[in-house]
This record gives sequence, structure tokens and C-alpha cells, in this order.
Amino acid sequence: MLPYFSDQMGNAQSVHSFGQEARAALETARRQVAALIGAAAAEIVFVSGGTEADNFAIRGVCEALSDRTGHIITTRIEHPAVLATAEALEGQGYSVTYLPVSSSGVVEAAQVLQAIRPNTILVSVMQANNETGAIQPIQEIGRLLADAHMAGHERIYLHTDAVQSVGKVPVDVGSLGVDLLSISAHKIHGPKGIGALYIKKGVRVGKILFGGHHERDRRPGTENIPAVVGFGAACELARLNLSDRMKRIRDLRDYLDRKVGSCIEGVKTNGHPGLRVPNISNLSFQGVDGESLLIALDLKGIAVSTGSACSSGSLEPSHVLTAMGLSREEVRGSLRFSLSQYTTREEVDYAVSVLEEVVGRLREMAPDEEDMGTRRSSFSVPTPEAVPNVEG
Amino acid sequence: MLPYFSDQMGNAQSVHSFGQEARAALETARRQVAALIGAAAAEIVFVSGGTEADNFAIRGVCEALSDRTGHIITTRIEHPAVLATAEALEGQGYSVTYLPVSSSGVVEAAQVLQAIRPNTILVSVMQANNETGAIQPIQEIGRLLADAHMAGHERIYLHTDAVQSVGKVPVDVGSLGVDLLSISAHKIHGPKGIGALYIKKGVRVGKILFGGHHERDRRPGTENIPAVVGFGAACELARLNLSDRMKRIRDLRDYLDRKVGSCIEGVKTNGHPGLRVPNISNLSFQGVDGESLLIALDLKGIAVSTGSACSSGSLEPSHVLTAMGLSREEVRGSLRFSLSQYTTREEVDYAVSVLEEVVGRLREMAPDEEDMGTRRSSFSVPTPEAVPNVEG
Repeated sequence: MLPYFSDQMGNAQSVHSFGQEARAALETARRQVAALIGAAAAEIVFVSGGTEADNFAIRGVCEALSDRTGHIITTRIEHPAVLATAEALEGQGYSVTYLPVSSSGVVEAAQVLQAIRPNTILVSVMQANNETGAIQPIQEIGRLLADAHMAGHERIYLHTDAVQSVGKVPVDVGSLGVDLLSISAHKIHGPKGIGALYIKKGVRVGKILFGGHHERDRRPGTENIPAVVGFGAACELARLNLSDRMKRIRDLRDYLDRKVGSCIEGVKTNGHPGLRVPNISNLSFQGVDGESLLIALDLKGIAVSTGSACSSGSLEPSHVLTAMGLSREEVRGSLRFSLSQYTTREEVDYAVSVLEEVVGRLREMAPDEEDMGTRRSSFSVPTPEAVPNVEG
Repeated sequence: MLPYFSDQMGNAQSVHSFGQEARAALETARRQVAALIGAAAAEIVFVSGGTEADNFAIRGVCEALSDRTGHIITTRIEHPAVLATAEALEGQGYSVTYLPVSSSGVVEAAQVLQAIRPNTILVSVMQANNETGAIQPIQEIGRLLADAHMAGHERIYLHTDAVQSVGKVPVDVGSLGVDLLSISAHKIHGPKGIGALYIKKGVRVGKILFGGHHERDRRPGTENIPAVVGFGAACELARLNLSDRMKRIRDLRDYLDRKVGSCIEGVKTNGHPGLRVPNISNLSFQGVDGESLLIALDLKGIAVSTGSACSSGSLEPSHVLTAMGLSREEVRGSLRFSLSQYTTREEVDYAVSVLEEVVGRLREMAPDEEDMGTRRSSFSVPTPEAVPNVEG
């Protein structure tokens, strides 16, 4: 990325050679991103990140189909970028079905089919959940939607937020059968502030930002060349030995799960044990407040997340774990562990030994378990200013 | 910016210390940006660039005031991010007045006043034009709107696209009297892909992107920390000796104008000669096609822009110069020269000598001047793929 911050700082819209250099870099990156998901370069639109990609996909379809009164099908476990967009559309007269998920955090394709109404225009289901890693049956949903179209239903577009799956499992837009797919660079070791929306050739999507004619008139604004170049490189790297790298991460993640299970009592794995992206483990620690655990682990140099939302000073329980039917206590005691290809076995051993110590200490400090439902953490709750409420 | 791509790669939403480091960097940058324009840090919302800032300001006000049927006042010389947003709102039932400008490219504040209707909700006028550099009377417009409010009109919000003025002239949101102001980092030597919208305390602005509660629930999406840090640093640097640096650039720009005028016949300066940002010169070369001139200059290592738009293979004349009443021929013969604090007198001398030679050559090659109106460039017209139609 570095040369594009200095010597090659051209604007890709400029006619002169500085601009043409920038444009060449832009188009190379577009091919790299496309290649990772089996798309054509012209089907990739660069945006500012996963959130914009999700907004663009959902509101873009609604814009393009503004002659059809719309019904949208999504799930209760989507990222806030999808859920908040769907809620905003409800405010504009769209109707939205939020499908439930199983106790392992997976939606059933058959439920999508049952939810279809005559005016359904869009289904948006994430490929892998960001809190549990649970993989959703996108391919099956795609087939059912194709069947519905064959049976005479007007075309229903299929969007998937693949921010947590691309670079973790093989993703091929053709075999998935999706029309729209969101990606974010910083989830695959690329830079922040850049993402892409795959828009299948022929799918009409309205704009959500207005201005110049960048990105084939789909997304205005001076192209973020250094970020795009980094995104392209990250996609290239993500394609290399994907299955080998992911097997190693999966083995390490499973080792973490087993070791925690053997060293610490009262731990439950959340999410489908088999159908998960290889890098995520979501664990509930009985009788422990996840936020307190997180802070105690942080003091030992271990970075985890609760997956919960902390808003206006009150702890909001994770909407994902709640949708899976976990009790309020189980949700409060949950932590998300994310591994990467850079995580080592020694780090996992260290994390488990610290966990064992800290969980034990927190349980000793806790009042009777019966009180857990109302017990406040003995650690200070961060202020909303310090800790707004979304983990990416 | 560099540490924030590697060691300090935390997500500013994360509770752990990696996240808190990122958050601290974010808030430092917010104060730096605020300081450049005399705002409070809490009035700065980071966005993906100037285009998003303009969209956010205009559509955000419309969203927040959705109970009031809206009329918007803007000008014919705005950036496409404003004009295309206004046009999209027209499609949604809003009415928009596009004010004309004088032959020197300046709108009259009195015309804003005359355009006010009972349902006017927003005035959006850029502080400095991107093609001519002409500075608009924002302060005067702000005063007139305040007077209208005093006289009983419901509050009319004032937005200014200050992408071309911040860091070029002193900008103080308080004395300007604006409610909303757009900035872009890459116009002040900061990185691409990051900008900010100043939202005056108390001004309600609806969201245009939906998702998490980032940026005090105003703009969702994982914060682009490296870019924000670079933006903050660029703002710090832009404050240093602003008037000295700009006097030097202004002198150099005026030297360019004078020298071109003395070396080359048939050259006209576009835009208000006095009321201009110091870094821009827009010149019309009689009997020459600007696009051909641009390409010839590029071959000599000189990067300029036509300010015109090249869309669908046809040359679209600059909407700014057209609004100023220039003839089609004058518009076609126009070039924008942008200088910076890194531009040297030697570079200006070189540019003028090349210009003299190239303009002479192009004029020799040109058919009779009477034919200019229909003459096609003797250089090949770039394809739309290679040269889309917006200069930032």
C-alpha cells in the first residue's frame, strides 16, 4: 500500500498519467477481490466497508425495485448493519420477517421458503455468524429461491453478508447462488475502511450515495487507492493454501475448546460445533460475568470480546445468543475467542491457563449462583463513552 | 499512520486495551480535525470522504425534518456529490432551487434570500469551488438565514462543502454561521477514504447508513483508525503557518497567471481574480481543446485537469464554467492548475514554457477558428472506461 500514499498518489479519475497509474492499481485490486470469490471483476464495487456493503445491498435492491411493495426476509442473528437497515426500511413501509435460528445458531432453509410472500423481494442471510461462527445454508436457500422463481414467483434476490466467511472457508458466488455478497478487507488482514459488494451481472441495484460516476456509476467518491491495493493483496494472500491454513486454525480452535472443557467446569460451546468457520469459538462460562472475564483477560494481554453490546451504561445481552435460546445468565457469561493464522499453540495454552485462574477467582468472588440473575459485576462497568456497543 | 496498520491494529469498539488504544487515537484525531475549523470534537463525525459528508449533510437534514415538506436551495456550481444528491431528492418529491452564479463564478447572498420559500429547510452552498477556486459568501448567507429565522421563518439549515477551502483559507464554523460543513482529508495532504462532517451541536441529522452505534450513533462501521490518524495529523499540519504558506502559494499562482498571460495570447482567467482560494488557477486557452492540451502536458510530466466531465464517450462541458456563462468553446479550452506548498517557482516556469510550446503547436494544427465549435480533437478521445467523468 505504501507507494500509493506518496509517489503514486494520483486520483483514479484523473486523465493524466498519475491518475492512470492509480486506475490501473484499482483494476488490479478489483480482479484480486473478484478471484477470491469466483466473481468477474466487473461484479465488484468497492465501498467503505462491510457496513456500507450491507446497506448498499439491501437498500439498493429496494431502490431498484421501488415499483414492488417490498417484503424482506432476514434472520435474528444478522450483523447490526443488516438488522438496523431492515428496521429503517420497516419505518418506510417495508415488511420484514426475522427468522429464528436453532439452538446451535443456524437458520433452516425451509423456514426461508415458508416465509416467502407474494411481495417478497429480498432474502438477506449472513454466511457465517460473527459471534458464533455458525455457517448458514446459503446454497440451499439459493436453490429454494431459484425453485420459487421457476414456480412463478417474481425474482427474489439473495444477499449474504460474507464478512466473516470470506477468507475463512471457500466462497464461490456461483455455487452459493447469491446475487449480492458483502466483504470487508480488515477481516482478512487487509486495511480498515474498505470493503466490497459483489453484484451479480444483471442484478439492478440502486445507489445509496450520490455524486460522481465512479465505480461504473454505482458508488461515488474518490477511490481509496491505498486501501483498495491492500484489500486486493489481502485477497491474493487469502487464496493461498486456504484449506491448509484453515485446517491448522480449526485444529487450534478445537484444541482450545477441548482444553477449556477439560480444565474448567461449567463451560458450554455456543454455535454449531461442526458447521462453524474455523477461527471462532464462543464459550459460556457458568456463573461468570463475561465483561468481567474480558477485562481480567485483557490485564493478562489476552484480547477477547463478549459479543454483547454495552449501550447507555446498561449491558445489552447479545441478540445472537439470545436468539439461540440461551438464558440471560448464559449470555452474560459468554466470550468470543477469535484465532488467526498467526495464533500459536503456546498462546492458546497461555490463554487457557489464565482463563482457568481467572474463572476460578471470579466464581469465588461471586455470590451464590442463585443470585446470578441479578448480580452486578464486581468490576466497574465501562462508561458508554468508553465502550460503545458494537463489535465488528 | 503506520503503527495503526500493524501493532496498534485494534478495533476502537473493542473493550480490551488494543481497542482502547485505537479509541484514544480516534479521539485525538477528532480533536485535531475540530481544531482546524474551530469546532468542538463532539461536533465532528468521521465518514468515508467528502462525497459521503455531502450526502450525509443534505439527506440527513431531510431525514431529520421529514415532517416538513422540503425545499432546498443550492447552486449550479456545486460538486456532483451535492448536485446528484439534490437531484435524487427531487425524485423523492423535494423541490430544489439551483441558483445561478456571476460571470466570475460567485453566487450572490441576496439571491439565496430571494429564493427562500415557506418550506425551505436547507441551503447548501460550497465555500470554494473546485474548478475555479471562487470563494462563496457563506458568512453573509449565514447572516441572512439567521435574519430570516428571527423574522419568523422556521429554521433553515446551512451546509457548506468546504472540501476545497479547509486548509487553504482560514475556516471557522462559528464565524461562518454554518450548521454543517464537509471536509475531505486527501485535499489537505491527508489520506484518501476519510472525511468528516461537522454537525453543529443541537442540529439533528438523520442517518444515511445503518448499523452499529459508532460515532455517537451517527455513522456506523468499524472506524478507519489509520486514516483517521492521518487525517488528524494533516489537520494539525494545515494549521501551522497557514497564512504564510498560503501567501507563498497565492504569489506563485498569481505568478503563473501573469506569466501565462504575458507568454501566451488569447488566455482568460476563469473565476473571481481576488476571491479565490490561493491554490487554484483556471485558464481558458482560445482555440485549443483542453483535453488535448492536458494530454500533451501529461507527456511532459505536468498534471492538470480539464474540470470537464467525460461521460459515455462524449465530452460533457464543465457545469461550473457553463454556469458562469462561458461559451462552449471557452469551456472546451479550459484547464485547472492546482498548486500546493510543494510547488516550486521552477516548476511553474517549466509548466509555462511547455504550455507556450504546446498551445502554439495545437493552434497551428487547428483548422480555422470559425470551425472551433464543431472541431473534434486531433488527439484520440479516451474511452469512458479509461476516463470516467469526475475530478474530485
